[in-house]
Amino acid sequence: MFERCDEVKVLRDPIHGYVNIELKVIWDCLNAKEFQRLRRIRQLGGAYMVYHTAEHTRFAHSLGVYEIVRKMVEENRSIRTALSEIDRVTVMLAGLLHDLGHGPYSHSFELISGFQHEEMTVAILCKNSEVHEVMEKAMPGLAEKVAQVIEGTHENPILIQMISGQLDADRMDYLLRDAYFTGTKYGEFDIQRVLRTIRVRDGKLVVKQSGMHSVEDYIMARYHMYWQVYYHPVARCYELLMKAFFQRLRDVAQSDPSVLDRFRPFASLALNETMTIEQHFSMDEPCFNYGLAQFQQAKDPILSDLAYRIVNRHLFGYEDWISQAQQDFCQSRLLSSGYDPRYYLLSDEARQRPYVPYKGDRKSLIYVVTPQEEVQELSEVSEIVSALIRGKSVNDVKLYYPKEILRKKADHEA
Amino acid sequence: MFERCDEVKVLRDPIHGYVNIELKVIWDCLNAKEFQRLRRIRQLGGAYMVYHTAEHTRFAHSLGVYEIVRKMVEENRSIRTALSEIDRVTVMLAGLLHDLGHGPYSHSFELISGFQHEEMTVAILCKNSEVHEVMEKAMPGLAEKVAQVIEGTHENPILIQMISGQLDADRMDYLLRDAYFTGTKYGEFDIQRVLRTIRVRDGKLVVKQSGMHSVEDYIMARYHMYWQVYYHPVARCYELLMKAFFQRLRDVAQSDPSVLDRFRPFASLALNETMTIEQHFSMDEPCFNYGLAQFQQAKDPILSDLAYRIVNRHLFGYEDWISQAQQDFCQSRLLSSGYDPRYYLLSDEARQRPYVPYKGDRKSLIYVVTPQEEVQELSEVSEIVSALIRGKSVNDVKLYYPKEILRKKADHEA
Amino acid sequence: MFERCDEVKVLRDPIHGYVNIELKVIWDCLNAKEFQRLRRIRQLGGAYMVYHTAEHTRFAHSLGVYEIVRKMVEENRSIRTALSEIDRVTVMLAGLLHDLGHGPYSHSFELISGFQHEEMTVAILCKNSEVHEVMEKAMPGLAEKVAQVIEGTHENPILIQMISGQLDADRMDYLLRDAYFTGTKYGEFDIQRVLRTIRVRDGKLVVKQSGMHSVEDYIMARYHMYWQVYYHPVARCYELLMKAFFQRLRDVAQSDPSVLDRFRPFASLALNETMTIEQHFSMDEPCFNYGLAQFQQAKDPILSDLAYRIVNRHLFGYEDWISQAQQDFCQSRLLSSGYDPRYYLLSDEARQRPYVPYKGDRKSLIYVVTPQEEVQELSEVSEIVSALIRGKSVNDVKLYYPKEILRKKADHEA
Amino acid sequence: MFERCDEVKVLRDPIHGYVNIELKVIWDCLNAKEFQRLRRIRQLGGAYMVYHTAEHTRFAHSLGVYEIVRKMVEENRSIRTALSEIDRVTVMLAGLLHDLGHGPYSHSFELISGFQHEEMTVAILCKNSEVHEVMEKAMPGLAEKVAQVIEGTHENPILIQMISGQLDADRMDYLLRDAYFTGTKYGEFDIQRVLRTIRVRDGKLVVKQSGMHSVEDYIMARYHMYWQVYYHPVARCYELLMKAFFQRLRDVAQSDPSVLDRFRPFASLALNETMTIEQHFSMDEPCFNYGLAQFQQAKDPILSDLAYRIVNRHLFGYEDWISQAQQDFCQSRLLSSGYDPRYYLLSDEARQRPYVPYKGDRKSLIYVVTPQEEVQELSEVSEIVSALIRGKSVNDVKLYYPKEILRKKADHEA
Repeated sequence: MFERCDEVKVLRDPIHGYVNIELKVIWDCLNAKEFQRLRRIRQLGGAYMVYHTAEHTRFAHSLGVYEIVRKMVEENRSIRTALSEIDRVTVMLAGLLHDLGHGPYSHSFELISGFQHEEMTVAILCKNSEVHEVMEKAMPGLAEKVAQVIEGTHENPILIQMISGQLDADRMDYLLRDAYFTGTKYGEFDIQRVLRTIRVRDGKLVVKQSGMHSVEDYIMARYHMYWQVYYHPVARCYELLMKAFFQRLRDVAQSDPSVLDRFRPFASLALNETMTIEQHFSMDEPCFNYGLAQFQQAKDPILSDLAYRIVNRHLFGYEDWISQAQQDFCQSRLLSSGYDPRYYLLSDEARQRPYVPYKGDRKSLIYVVTPQEEVQELSEVSEIVSALIRGKSVNDVKLYYPKEILRKKADHEA
Repeated sequence: MFERCDEVKVLRDPIHGYVNIELKVIWDCLNAKEFQRLRRIRQLGGAYMVYHTAEHTRFAHSLGVYEIVRKMVEENRSIRTALSEIDRVTVMLAGLLHDLGHGPYSHSFELISGFQHEEMTVAILCKNSEVHEVMEKAMPGLAEKVAQVIEGTHENPILIQMISGQLDADRMDYLLRDAYFTGTKYGEFDIQRVLRTIRVRDGKLVVKQSGMHSVEDYIMARYHMYWQVYYHPVARCYELLMKAFFQRLRDVAQSDPSVLDRFRPFASLALNETMTIEQHFSMDEPCFNYGLAQFQQAKDPILSDLAYRIVNRHLFGYEDWISQAQQDFCQSRLLSSGYDPRYYLLSDEARQRPYVPYKGDRKSLIYVVTPQEEVQELSEVSEIVSALIRGKSVNDVKLYYPKEILRKKADHEA
Repeated sequence: MFERCDEVKVLRDPIHGYVNIELKVIWDCLNAKEFQRLRRIRQLGGAYMVYHTAEHTRFAHSLGVYEIVRKMVEENRSIRTALSEIDRVTVMLAGLLHDLGHGPYSHSFELISGFQHEEMTVAILCKNSEVHEVMEKAMPGLAEKVAQVIEGTHENPILIQMISGQLDADRMDYLLRDAYFTGTKYGEFDIQRVLRTIRVRDGKLVVKQSGMHSVEDYIMARYHMYWQVYYHPVARCYELLMKAFFQRLRDVAQSDPSVLDRFRPFASLALNETMTIEQHFSMDEPCFNYGLAQFQQAKDPILSDLAYRIVNRHLFGYEDWISQAQQDFCQSRLLSSGYDPRYYLLSDEARQRPYVPYKGDRKSLIYVVTPQEEVQELSEVSEIVSALIRGKSVNDVKLYYPKEILRKKADHEA
Repeated sequence: MFERCDEVKVLRDPIHGYVNIELKVIWDCLNAKEFQRLRRIRQLGGAYMVYHTAEHTRFAHSLGVYEIVRKMVEENRSIRTALSEIDRVTVMLAGLLHDLGHGPYSHSFELISGFQHEEMTVAILCKNSEVHEVMEKAMPGLAEKVAQVIEGTHENPILIQMISGQLDADRMDYLLRDAYFTGTKYGEFDIQRVLRTIRVRDGKLVVKQSGMHSVEDYIMARYHMYWQVYYHPVARCYELLMKAFFQRLRDVAQSDPSVLDRFRPFASLALNETMTIEQHFSMDEPCFNYGLAQFQQAKDPILSDLAYRIVNRHLFGYEDWISQAQQDFCQSRLLSSGYDPRYYLLSDEARQRPYVPYKGDRKSLIYVVTPQEEVQELSEVSEIVSALIRGKSVNDVKLYYPKEILRKKADHEA
């Protein structure tokens, strides 16, 4: 029913070898300006400040998610036969387009702007956008269906599971991709085997027991990537500095709105105005970074210092948070050195459990089907996962402040 | 003599495993703002428009060149003993800093602005910059020595050969790195073996005959990367479009200088003014891309259309240039469709020979030392290379114009 | 003090890039016939019956262990400075020679013959062998020292830890090597980082906390490799069949000693005689396999059938052992089909915990040193490992018998 | 028409990820004893004496060739639609079974025994063998068709091209496999792209021009693998020694036939008798190696010395053949040292051109189809290949004799 391209389009990709596109609606979405914009949003936020090769974009990631979904619905016989053609196209599009709503530095930008990228994604899909037109032209109502998969309200739970379950195409791609582009090995697992051993049972995706070890490996990969990459203190510091910069911008703008004239696109952020789709479209990383660079010349010394630090990677040092006394000590040192602790003593907490079986929707869990065709939740079958969920979760609270007052040099070791 | 860091600094890198930094002068140069700026310049210019993962930066490449030079001068006994400590530090710094002068999209920017990045590099090294200060503090006169290596005027030809010979650390890193980040295999060769088999003979670097096959592989890798990546027509089109945009900007500005108010940092480019070091420092890719995006709203329809095409990847189609008649035909089609051929009919030529033994300075050639300790130029010993240089060179002339008037759809296949 | 080779010898190795040999005593041991014999002993016993590319030898593995030890004692500054030159050479030789005593199919052969390969290794090192001569010529008493490391009685516990601790060069090499040659990814971990972060503290090897995640990965790699490769039921079946063959050979030989004339080298095995060093030397895998092939023509039908099955891979099927009733049922089915259950109903148990902190010598445990220079046992610091050791161990008991009477086809899936 | 297995059988393979088997006839051939015998024949003959990890077997290679053919006929739409189901099954079987006729050490054995492995393969396929029965049961006449593909007499030239053209599945697998198991990078090329760009035109396989660079890479890979692996002097020496051993065995047996009692399976080889299929079946590498080991105790000193050298890797040294005078000098040195030059002064010649367009059947050449649908022979389109074929071929003639009389130590460097 859906129109095909004249020839299969293939895009070389280091993770999947090639991304294969046969349907015209996919190809046209790829060429829509909202999707091309994802070339201008990095996948990993501030992590490229630690891993200097982690420059890969949401564009590449989105292609990867699409390709995994495509393999699921086309090459896995059990899934292919369980889905209608419309469902198959819907979920491939959902894989491709699920990240349209991201802003610069992804999650950091959500902290700064207060909006959720999922909502923005849905807005773009359903409104007056190029991708919307492309999908509606291919089949009226298609954009709505794709949005439902992303919102988690689609009637077919299998489609939702493929995009946002515990073992979805999104996570599978980003673990492999982030491992490749950081140069770490933690994120590697045998995706080929996982994809081969997925089956549809009782209206949901399950994994054959012969693929369980690969899934355990995936759970561990995820755990390691969180600590080694996503929660790396330098990446967190970079994001805290951006948050502090916008905090300062807001504080200054209250008494002196003209500060916003230096770079008008930041005005709505500083004034907590709701972002329009057009503003969101323009607010990519070149815009964001150019804006930050402009504030290096701001008259307010805190604003210009924070901008300078972000642009030139003069980040704060950090140490484990141990006690309130330690924090008070740092605060007094900062004050005596002339630093305003509101912007110069930052703190955050990272917390991670490798796999949480009871959290959230049961539909998103990982299930295993035994050779006897019994379907069980992963932690009931896997000794490894069972042990991990009984372990206590690890918290990591850190204090960040200018290195100049730091007693011990932070270790730059990726 | 040179101060060491408290602990060896290691940066994870997918190409070399780790980049190792022991000397404080290297570490401090890495943290200087001129070097950090290279995080904001992509390595491959427009090639990321073809290879969607080719987002790696000159920052990462420069670290890689440094690491290869470090392995040469520290781990290769023959080189280590042939050089003084000052020479070793000089050439490691030259490897690290050789690309400081690049502008956005590297070679495209040179076409647009008319300056040479090597000259800018030397200017930055020798003027009032952070890297200059760091080097002079480590040893007065060091910056000058580093500049001489990059200019090719240093008294020790071995240092020059390491940075800009036919088999230098620069090319070795970029072939491997570009292969990794595009996901192609063409650029791979056995660098470990090449580095192991380099020797110093007669005051120059030569390769032992037992490493010759790896060097042949490297020559072929280079040849393939040129055609598959560096000269890919889509990448070339992207760069031609940028050139056309600035051509139009210049043309419009002559009659209406206010067009430059839309983004003042482009003014000096449009007016062919010499760029200052400060302007160069600010002109990174976020700035350049943000500027281009601004011109989508330009009143001049050609200017806004070209900007729109660049930003949203509505590139031109292309075909092999065959005859003047073909070009004339295209021109008339464009005119009848309302396109100004000055900006909408573009053309370029790519030309490549895998290895040219007699071109330029004989010092930059590749030499092989036989088990009998005879030193010979590569093409005299290698049947493969000898055959290649006798082959006629390949020319590739292409015509580019809007797809809409294109008779035959271009093949997007990476 | 120890003589060097004229040139560093380098052997290409897919796991370590190159194996580097500088010392003559190492090179001469490598060329001794007892070491060359290891080319004729596979590393993985029967696993090549499951993973068809797992044909790698103890020769290659031993070179790999040597190379890891060499990197530890030469490239890790903390270890290098903690050891004398004699200790360094001793432990490199111990790494190279630790497996000399293995027989065909390694552990299976121990089951059949009743001897321990470690004892045989020590006997070879200390007796009238080529390796013994080479070492004694290099330094009188050296062979004895090497044997002490392998026996675990050397006065320097660091040397013992490198060869037979929980994180020793032996395991590091075999995990990586077995992963590479089976084509699985389970065994991969970041050895480069582990080797970089090892330190000597309190007279033992410890790992810096910044390398702990790599060690966790290694523990998981080990766990997965056990279940996916080492304990694979097909590999176990192959080894059980060899045990059953020799059981039958013994039983037949008691009434009819002439059965042993078919292949005399099996006589001492069948008669439970102690093996001499000379017999051990000759008993390599070509000999063992040739002998098995000869018994395909034995007059005793059980003996010839078992030999035929082993040679032509007509293995038994298998199923999980559930109950004695199941076993009794199989037994009666076998009897009614004319099979002697003593040789045709086999069973074994595989049991594995990923890391056992309290087992055996505390010296062999893995220790972590925190940035505060506290040394702690791994499971006290790592949440992952702590969770794993609290998990219950996994047992896997299987029944094996001819597929012909099997109700359900065994799944051949590697 | 052909029966399928209950479930797709998958075998993990490091080169292709997985080998996939759906058809019962393939699976049953794999389990036939003639195919299982290939587990006991190494792929690379004596090259494992240089590359210590090159222990991979013809069994693994044959599975790999099958998998490449399967991808061609199932996943490449152009090929799939050009072939009937019977042709597809025929060529997959031909890929799987093409090496059945090999003896120990493959090509060396041909030199010794005088038979051609292709003829033996055809004999096995068409006679009273397990594979023959399996195929005839699946479809009468199938074995004959498979044999025709291997003999090159099948009516459909496409099938022949897939198994024995210049770009056939056989070479593609062995280049990649040999590169992987030696640990060299020379043999790598982008097989995925080659397979994607193959098309059927004018009744033959051709490659799209967009895949031509990958084919050039493949040609170069082949060239390098010949010199670095297949023609490595140490591997050649190992094979020459085996030839010399059998020469001596023949010479001794003429006067003293009892010498053959030491290992009867060598008798027919020594007496130049034609080998029966049964003798060929038994003559695998364990048998061959065990036999050689037995002759270490032969009474004839030359025979026992040659056997000892082969078993314990006391190979000859080697040097380039330069002149007859050099050879005469060696001969006189050998004579004065008591060596018989007939067995102790060996010589051979290796000769290689990367691609020979006019040699042999035009059907086996590589053709390229341009975007304009013109079909041209590779060297007419590729500048690289065109240059290579104009280059003169490289000859390498070597002399081998005992190291003891060698003036210059041979370089063991893989």
